[in-house]
Amino acid sequence: MYDLISLGKAARQASARLRTSNTDARNRALCAIAAALREHIPEILEANRLDLANAKAAGIRSVMIDRLTLNPDRIRGIADAAEDVSRLADPIGVVDEGTTRPNGLQILKTRVPIGVVAMIFEARPNVTVDAAVLCLKSGNACILRGGKEAFATNRVLVRLMRGAVEQAGLPADSIGLVEDTSHETAERLMRLNGYIDVLIPRGSARLIRSVVENASVPVIETGAGNCHMYVDRAADLKMAVDIIDNGKTQRPSVCNSLETVLVHQEVAAAFLPMMKARLDLHQVELRGCERTCAILHSATPATEEDWATEYNDFILAVKVVDSLDEAVAHIAAYSTGHSDGIVTNDLAASRQFTAQVDSAAVYVNASTRFTDGGEFGLGAEIGISTQKLHTRGPMGLRDLTSIKYIVTGNGQIRP
Amino acid sequence: MYDLISLGKAARQASARLRTSNTDARNRALCAIAAALREHIPEILEANRLDLANAKAAGIRSVMIDRLTLNPDRIRGIADAAEDVSRLADPIGVVDEGTTRPNGLQILKTRVPIGVVAMIFEARPNVTVDAAVLCLKSGNACILRGGKEAFATNRVLVRLMRGAVEQAGLPADSIGLVEDTSHETAERLMRLNGYIDVLIPRGSARLIRSVVENASVPVIETGAGNCHMYVDRAADLKMAVDIIDNGKTQRPSVCNSLETVLVHQEVAAAFLPMMKARLDLHQVELRGCERTCAILHSATPATEEDWATEYNDFILAVKVVDSLDEAVAHIAAYSTGHSDGIVTNDLAASRQFTAQVDSAAVYVNASTRFTDGGEFGLGAEIGISTQKLHTRGPMGLRDLTSIKYIVTGNGQIRP
Repeated sequence: MYDLISLGKAARQASARLRTSNTDARNRALCAIAAALREHIPEILEANRLDLANAKAAGIRSVMIDRLTLNPDRIRGIADAAEDVSRLADPIGVVDEGTTRPNGLQILKTRVPIGVVAMIFEARPNVTVDAAVLCLKSGNACILRGGKEAFATNRVLVRLMRGAVEQAGLPADSIGLVEDTSHETAERLMRLNGYIDVLIPRGSARLIRSVVENASVPVIETGAGNCHMYVDRAADLKMAVDIIDNGKTQRPSVCNSLETVLVHQEVAAAFLPMMKARLDLHQVELRGCERTCAILHSATPATEEDWATEYNDFILAVKVVDSLDEAVAHIAAYSTGHSDGIVTNDLAASRQFTAQVDSAAVYVNASTRFTDGGEFGLGAEIGISTQKLHTRGPMGLRDLTSIKYIVTGNGQIRP
Repeated sequence: MYDLISLGKAARQASARLRTSNTDARNRALCAIAAALREHIPEILEANRLDLANAKAAGIRSVMIDRLTLNPDRIRGIADAAEDVSRLADPIGVVDEGTTRPNGLQILKTRVPIGVVAMIFEARPNVTVDAAVLCLKSGNACILRGGKEAFATNRVLVRLMRGAVEQAGLPADSIGLVEDTSHETAERLMRLNGYIDVLIPRGSARLIRSVVENASVPVIETGAGNCHMYVDRAADLKMAVDIIDNGKTQRPSVCNSLETVLVHQEVAAAFLPMMKARLDLHQVELRGCERTCAILHSATPATEEDWATEYNDFILAVKVVDSLDEAVAHIAAYSTGHSDGIVTNDLAASRQFTAQVDSAAVYVNASTRFTDGGEFGLGAEIGISTQKLHTRGPMGLRDLTSIKYIVTGNGQIRP
């Protein structure tokens, strides 16, 4: 049985040292990581070629192969990102609030690292570096469990990063790799209470469901995005076409891309042909309700399953609704609570929509594609939370911190 | 099989209405709850007498009987507390931060209810009302699962509260009670994903462990407190005696009471007899390390188990340490991360201690008994979190909220 306990203990010890490390040391470590990656491009590529050969022999589909593939430019991009993070403000040591109580006790609510962050993810080696870098910046040790397809690449990346961190005077065990990619070991990792303070899964819906069902350590669910755009009767129809085209076609494979359009009946006849003309440029397949198909004869009839599906592809579900209320009810029934929007120039409609739709990000007259740490101005993100606990929406450095109350007095006792 | 799904659906529907309810309506509901409790004291007491008779017949121990017992004063106190909560600021609708991005998108980070909060707790009927009141104030529906010992009392309390909420124009299903107190139903509640946004267990270490191990819904662990006070060589010894006496004897049964004292070797000979003289007034049993027993001959020798035990009783573990470093290491090994403190007048020692000790509340020269929502100025608390996710330490109304990003533009699309 793979020895997760030793890995957990090492991470916990490293986390105790990171907790009291200073900002400069952590930033130096990030720059050292960037330098190590740039210096060892041939070595990284050699490991990556091995992973790619294995993946191709195993018949992995081409979109996965693309995610797995590194080249000198991608490696330099990953290194640049690490340096960018070194220039962000330190989220640790911030005093959120403070007060002096009537009895003279001073209470400071301060930001501290969470401790040990575990991540389970799939075939993207850039996540290996991004996750380690964001954890290190925020004073957390991390335990990484990447997909077996990227194992050789991840092993080289983690070895290089550990060396760089040590060279900067911080413990190498700040970054740990689970060197056994079996499901059984992943499931034990999910239950490593006492060593792991939070587990963040990133990847397929299946992976995330497995973590939610099996984990006993605290989890941040990063999730699927079945995102909606509602075209209100008071919409600027040209704007709606732009926003829907952008949401669907700019990068269909990501979680904040658009999956369903809801159209108010009063504008459906005018709007749907305009929308179709634009989406035809990208050969988007439309799956419509009865009323949609009556207007767009080439649309495929949608089934119940279409409303619930995150296509991540050039397919869009379309439904004509009687009212804003019906749009809100449809979103309540089918949305995954990631990103949903309205196109309207009616202020009351926009207020009702933003109040009633219960999603991490609710948009008025803008593309859902903006739900992203960088676009929100958070600087960098470690994932997008679709749960309501701890944080919701794009998770930046601050979301990798916890609270410590520091209470100082001169002998106060409780009466 | 008890129908939890219907209960979950009803709570989810109520939560959708609560999400857009206004502050006044929710405050009116809290005042209506207070009035209903005051008006129905005889009915509540009758149900409570039934629970008490069953508990006594089942041979429940007396401390549990005390927690279970209501009387007119206690009921009026619970009603007063509900009115106090109605006077607190509304945590919902607050805009935490906002920005306008270079492309003109306005991004507001707003506070919204979590949704449906489930609580599993034991024999204290006041928790039934407190939890419902705090959830309602923060716009959350709640599902309550109290202990079987308080079942008749809880049923009356929940019926009265549901009536009051409805009378104030909000859905009765804002407050739901699990009317089957079997373990099997509790375990299904822990896995009611899709209906419950967070589960907060309150009660024994055994209950909390069971929730952490079994739950698939997000959990806030409220926890055990194995709390320490370290008497530094630079301590004001008289102050240290006061703080330790208060921590141990003012209310030993609670989670922020003191369980272990660590004493620097240089002051042990002077300090320990002073401490013993004071604690003798409360017949506190001392369990000491070898060096402690050499100074205090009447102390019982401590075993390894003593360092890890939350006594919740008039018993105190005592250890002499060589240094501040040893004190910090002992706390790292045995503390539950609830509340730990130092008594010292040495600024460098206090800085080292507060930086290195990783607990929800770290004290300098004050009693650990202050770790409490009211004492921290949070107004009311629903529990004390000993996990690092979401929140840590006393949980106030703000900790019953989540985030919604509201993004408004005029046609922005992502390049």
